[in-house]
Amino acid sequence: MFTLYYAKGTAALPVQIALEEVGAEYDLRLLDFASQDQAKPDYLKINPKGRVPALVTPDGILTETPALMTYIGQMFKAANLLPETPFGLARAQEFNVYLASTVHVAHAHKHRGSRWSDDESAFPAMQAKVAQNMTDCATLIETGYLQGPWVMGDQYTICDPYLFLVARWLKGDGVNESAFPKIMAHRARMEARPAVQAVLKFHD
Amino acid sequence: MFTLYYAKGTAALPVQIALEEVGAEYDLRLLDFASQDQAKPDYLKINPKGRVPALVTPDGILTETPALMTYIGQMFKAANLLPETPFGLARAQEFNVYLASTVHVAHAHKHRGSRWSDDESAFPAMQAKVAQNMTDCATLIETGYLQGPWVMGDQYTICDPYLFLVARWLKGDGVNESAFPKIMAHRARMEARPAVQAVLKFHD
Repeated sequence: MFTLYYAKGTAALPVQIALEEVGAEYDLRLLDFASQDQAKPDYLKINPKGRVPALVTPDGILTETPALMTYIGQMFKAANLLPETPFGLARAQEFNVYLASTVHVAHAHKHRGSRWSDDESAFPAMQAKVAQNMTDCATLIETGYLQGPWVMGDQYTICDPYLFLVARWLKGDGVNESAFPKIMAHRARMEARPAVQAVLKFHD
Repeated sequence: MFTLYYAKGTAALPVQIALEEVGAEYDLRLLDFASQDQAKPDYLKINPKGRVPALVTPDGILTETPALMTYIGQMFKAANLLPETPFGLARAQEFNVYLASTVHVAHAHKHRGSRWSDDESAFPAMQAKVAQNMTDCATLIETGYLQGPWVMGDQYTICDPYLFLVARWLKGDGVNESAFPKIMAHRARMEARPAVQAVLKFHD
């Protein structure tokens, strides 16, 4: 049994999709970011970083989306969410780390400027580059990483739910979605999956 | 045989240490950031992201430091750089992803503000928060992640060379090193390792 701490539309979404895909039993704990639940003492005992997702496992608490995705894949090997070769697994991890350390960070400069500056007058300058940065990221994914039909090719893996999260950000970040037909087709493919439909009910 | 594209003092450092630790055969290709080597067409064919490290393997090219560290651990299992349990491995990956997506990003707002804004007048506002953010990160590592003597406890793993890189940044980022005795002792422990000494010659 697992417990997933989440907030709507956050990086907890791909983790919850992975839990659904593998058929894991899990409880959900919703945090309300508008009420700053993530910064309250009770939650900081779960995750001192004050972020989501956090997954309570039988062995302890885990955070950081790429680590969680790989962990779920390894705990439920029969679900076949991990590439089998060391190189394939490394490529999947490379993709997820790229989303976490570059794409998510680029996106976060739109609404989370306070992470990197206490001077609110600098926020518009950060926000002004979000559309270009996210377009650059989408271009790299569209022309490089996304093999089709799934990120890693024929195999649906731990990369796909995470890309789905990013694809949902693009329009709001000022990216011209029609320039990225492969990413849009991937998003539609994801939306057709029962596991994704089951999870989206908790995030919309 | 591997080829590591690197620049001095960058996130290629922990990858090179890992290659040394496992006894891998590898060639080095030095990029001069002052000459913008990382943005030249020849290198963008290796890594379209224009970043280091990039590792050319017999199976293809890999990037993203946490993915590379895990890959090296898996290709050289006899070197015992990976925790054995799925939970232990997930914790090691959590730590490395935290360094990549939060700590490295906090550090990069000192000199790499142009990644997130085209308005140079916003850079000082970003730089002003680097010392506090890096102090917060060091606190989480000192009081949480770093079990001692190594990050994961008694076992030297893929986490240790990466923490060593971060420890080398702290003073320059305005962090009071003396407030973090466990991290400083870890750094000294790392500097005593022959693999680290062999690698530092290429980075100083």
